[in-house]
Order: sequence, then structure tokens, then C-alpha cells
Amino acid sequence: MYVDVILNQPASRDYRVYIDQLETLHFDTKVLIVTNTTVASLHLETLQKKIEAKELYSVILPDGEQYKNMQSLNLILNACFEHRLDRKSLLIAFGGGVIGDMTGFAASIYQRGIDFIQIPTTLLSQVDASVGGKTGINNSYGKNLIGSFWQPRAVYCESVFLKTLPKREFSAGVAEMIKMAVTFDKAFFEWLETHDLEDEAHLKEAIAKSIAIKARVVALDETEQGIRAVLNYGHTFAHVIENQTHYTTFLHGEAVAIGMVMANILAQKLTFLNADEALRIVTLLEHYDLPTHYRIENVEAFYDAFFLDKKSEHAVIKFILAQGIGGYEISRNIPKEVVLEALKEANA
Amino acid sequence: MYVDVILNQPASRDYRVYIDQLETLHFDTKVLIVTNTTVASLHLETLQKKIEAKELYSVILPDGEQYKNMQSLNLILNACFEHRLDRKSLLIAFGGGVIGDMTGFAASIYQRGIDFIQIPTTLLSQVDASVGGKTGINNSYGKNLIGSFWQPRAVYCESVFLKTLPKREFSAGVAEMIKMAVTFDKAFFEWLETHDLEDEAHLKEAIAKSIAIKARVVALDETEQGIRAVLNYGHTFAHVIENQTHYTTFLHGEAVAIGMVMANILAQKLTFLNADEALRIVTLLEHYDLPTHYRIENVEAFYDAFFLDKKSEHAVIKFILAQGIGGYEISRNIPKEVVLEALKEANA
Repeated sequence: MYVDVILNQPASRDYRVYIDQLETLHFDTKVLIVTNTTVASLHLETLQKKIEAKELYSVILPDGEQYKNMQSLNLILNACFEHRLDRKSLLIAFGGGVIGDMTGFAASIYQRGIDFIQIPTTLLSQVDASVGGKTGINNSYGKNLIGSFWQPRAVYCESVFLKTLPKREFSAGVAEMIKMAVTFDKAFFEWLETHDLEDEAHLKEAIAKSIAIKARVVALDETEQGIRAVLNYGHTFAHVIENQTHYTTFLHGEAVAIGMVMANILAQKLTFLNADEALRIVTLLEHYDLPTHYRIENVEAFYDAFFLDKKSEHAVIKFILAQGIGGYEISRNIPKEVVLEALKEANA
Repeated sequence: MYVDVILNQPASRDYRVYIDQLETLHFDTKVLIVTNTTVASLHLETLQKKIEAKELYSVILPDGEQYKNMQSLNLILNACFEHRLDRKSLLIAFGGGVIGDMTGFAASIYQRGIDFIQIPTTLLSQVDASVGGKTGINNSYGKNLIGSFWQPRAVYCESVFLKTLPKREFSAGVAEMIKMAVTFDKAFFEWLETHDLEDEAHLKEAIAKSIAIKARVVALDETEQGIRAVLNYGHTFAHVIENQTHYTTFLHGEAVAIGMVMANILAQKLTFLNADEALRIVTLLEHYDLPTHYRIENVEAFYDAFFLDKKSEHAVIKFILAQGIGGYEISRNIPKEVVLEALKEANA
């Protein structure tokens, strides 16, 4: 199974996302695998056996979002320099979204850009982070504020690597799949309601469907001038929740699950979504044990926190809302009172 | 006067290089000027008066190639964060090649890429560095090893800023003009033989001609897969000279002048160039008081140093040679003995 990502750019930058197709890969160049301690201890040997390269190296970073910073980026770049990678060399991102984002960023700036391949090892990164070419690191001002758009040469999603994934992380990945179904694909949402993803064949199909949606959106809007923003459904709220809980209470996908429920309350107030549709979304999230509620201490402070996201331009908050199931609405200029009411209801 | 740079990319990335056309510029966004101490003390006030922006900021870096590093890059990025620049904000590179390369690089990675404008203040950066979109910083492994391809939105070359340029730096810029004439444009070379660039009208015309050549080459080969490498005529030798003299003895353009003379000796051995043509090139370089000779201590060591350039792939050295005046030849696999003989002759 595979999905092609076709970009509105010179053809050489298009690439294929393979699902369970990773046999031996041959490279006539130097290859550097970038991974983290967790993935390395579980799967690095398995991967190394599948890669034939002129010279094969690995660099193992500490595991966690808190290491998605300039220091880790420099560890990757230094490994490139030490092993004298040249312009034809290749990086392989072997891990979750953090490894993918940092490896892609390093590839984009090493000798003004070299190729990289993604082998995402979490469900979240398979269905979301590995497609789209967003790379970056965090700093004290916020998340992903330094980075680039740099597309991988290929992506390999292997279900074998998901077998060691903790259940919570699996569900966090499902949250992003549900997110894409709600805003873009009613048939996929209904399919999700009737197919359990613990069945491996179903999971594979769902991964392919999610990637196909994401690929379509990215192809339409690679650098997020418009429709790509819809992928942020639930995220405006999730970012505040993650920030208030210092990124320690919820996994990203869990915060997105809560964020979608909050966005849906707002969407109901604006009559984009009805109560039955909102309930179906909550039910599906809860089926995967995803959290759907967060206690807001102070709704005013929560509202103000929307504006602290440094990427917000000119202090207008864009809310991405579901319009029925399978549709979306990008709403600017929603009156503050309406948003506050929705936040109060979410708290009820 | 202006030159359009048309790239084989989506049209939005094409841009115009204006020569002596800088009136007041209006921006409906935040603008950050990046400059160095030298240029700031001479010209920053003049420039600030010409820029109207929503908010206008400056960051002033120390002057010199030795500051073209990660630390200075972070100073630029931190200024972006402190002033809360957003995705619509603009950077202005106001200085020579070092400022241009670092500002372009910062623009390419701040929030995954924002616009920047070049206002080059040296002749070298007006005719060379400001066109082509190469950005980068140096590190202990070499020059420009971390960077990106990122095109400016516009370039403004103003002769007023050249009036404060030291004579040596002026000549270093002329060296790069001669470089382009020799390999790409016989008529321009002959024009240079008969027109003195101390005349301001001639200078302006020569700047426009040089930029037009560079723009043509970059349009053909933005990411240096082929013909763009010809712009490195003289540079293979120059890099070794600069390295051996720790970047303190010669300005880059001066090292390129010597490098061209060395390349010409090799080209004569391979009969690409005749003695008369080689002499005309030396004569023109010397007219601008450019150095044309460097004492090589050890020709074997000089030869080995070609291979230390980390960008060389698979240890094959590509020599860019003049083929007559106005033509070029990219030579791989020149026997070591032939190169050594040329180096000995250069030393004679």
C-alpha cells in the first residue's frame, strides 16, 4: 500500500509514503540514521539490517519534546560533519514527530539542503508529522518557531514499530485521525465509527486513509496560506491546554482530543454543528479512552492565552470549526463573549 | 536601471535587482534591519529615513567574516523574537556578503521562512552575493556549510554606499566582475579593458552587466547542479590560499584574482587558453591593483588541500577553467602531475 504526495512544485520534490513496504533499502551514499534512546533500544538493530549504504552511521538523541531544541539540532549537524557527509548523503529520521521535525530541519540546512527519509515509529507521526514537510525546533518563545519547509524523499510507515507503542500514545495517534475525518471526510468518520483499529488490517487501512487526506491538503497548500490551517482543528485550544499543563499532563494527541471537543461547543453555538454530531465525535474519542474534558481555572486567562501564540498575526484568532461531520469552517472575528460562553460551557 | 532574476520556480519567487533606484520603501509590516557596526556608523541613519514600516527595528552585529557563525545567527533570530516579528514581517540585509548570507539564512528559518530584502553595501556583494539566494554561516569544519537556498524579495544596489568603500574592497569587487566576464561574456571583458570603473557611469553599467550574467546563470541552475559551478572560477585555488593565510592576508576577491591566474596557468597547459589571453586577464586584474601571485610553500600540500574542502564529493576535484575569453570548461580528473606542474609554474 502507498500514497503519493504530489506537490505544486518541481516534480523532483514529490514523494511516496509506503505502508508496510520496507524491504532492504540500498544507497550508494553515506547514510546517517537519527533516532532517540527509546527507539534505538527497541528497533535500531532491526533497521540497520535493512539499510545498505556506502557508510552507515547513527546518532542517538535523548527522547522527549523537551529535547526538540537547538542543542539537539547541533548534535545532528555535528554527526553530519564528523562523518563528512556530503551533498549526496542521506539522513533517515527514525522515531516520532520530534525526531522527524529535527532531522528534516537538519537535512534542510546541512550544506544548503540534503535528502532525508522518514521512518516514523509512532502512530501520530505516521499519520500526521511524516507528511507535509514542516520541520523545526522549539525555543523559549514557543514551539516550532525556527524551522523550514523541507519534504522527505520518501516515508516508510511500518506497523511492526507500532507494536511496542504504549496504549496512550496509540490513542493519541487515533485522535489526529479522527481530527482529519471530522473536518475532511464524512465517509472515513463513519468507517471509523464501525471499524475497530485494534484490528491490524483496519489500522493499516486507516493509516492509509489519513495519510491520503493529509497529502491532499498539503498538495493544495504546501506552505499553509489557506486550507492547510484546517489541520489545526482542535489545536488552538490544545496549545493553551498543553501550555497551562507545561506539556506534562497530556500527550499532544490527547490535548487535541479535548481541543476538538471545545471547538465543537463553539461550533454548536454558531450552529455549524448540531448536538448529535458533537456527541458522535465525543463517543468516538472516548472509545479510544481519549480525554475529552479539561478543567479551565479561569476562562478569561484561557482566552487571553490564545493571543500569546507568537504565530498569531495582528491578534486575530482563526478558529477552525467542524461544519457538520466532514466539513470545516475557518472563523475569524468571533466575538469574545461567544468564545467565553463556549469556554464556560466546556467547563460545565 | 534594473535586472530581473527569473527562477524556474513559482513566479512569486522571482525578484528584481534595482540599481540606484532606492527611494522611500513602505511596508505595512514589522521590519528588522540587520547590519554591522561599520555600516551602521556610516549609513544606518540614511537608510532608516528611507524605510516606512509598521514598526522598524535594527540589530547591529560585529563586522567581519569571523562573526559569520551560529552566535551571530542567534543574535538575529533573538531580535526577531524580541520584537515579535510574525510571518509577514521582513528582514533587510544591510551590509556586505556576510550580512547578506546570515540575514538570508535567518529569514529562511524564522517561523519556517519570512521575506527579506538585500541592500548590499560593498561592490562584491552587489555584483555577486546579493544575487542567487545562497545563504549560510561558517563553522569549524568550513565555510557556508550550514545554510539554505532562499531568494530575496528584492535587491537594491546603491552607488552612494560604495563611496565609503576602501579602495582594496572596491578592487576585490572588480575581481568578481572580471571573473564573470572571462567565463561568460567576451564582449563584457573587452568593454572592461576599455572602460575605467572609477567613472561612476561606467561602474553602474558594469554592475548591471555583472548582475545580469549572474542572474542568467542562477536562473539556469538555482541549486548548483551544473553551470552555476562555473561562478567558482578561481575559487578552488582561492579557498586554499584563504585557508593557508587564515583569511587575514587577502580579501576574498583578492584571493579569487590570484586563483584565476593559477587556473589560467592550468588552462594553458591543457590548451584551453593561450598566452595572450592569459596575459590580458592578468593585465586587467593588475590595472585594479589586484594581487596575481601567491608564494606556494609546498605544492603537494597545496594540492592535498583541494580535498579538504568538505563539499568535494567522492574526492574528485572539479576545476573550472577559462576556455578562451568568454568561455568555460569544467574539468574533472585532470591528472595530479599536470596540476602539480601548473602549481610549480605559478610559483616560478
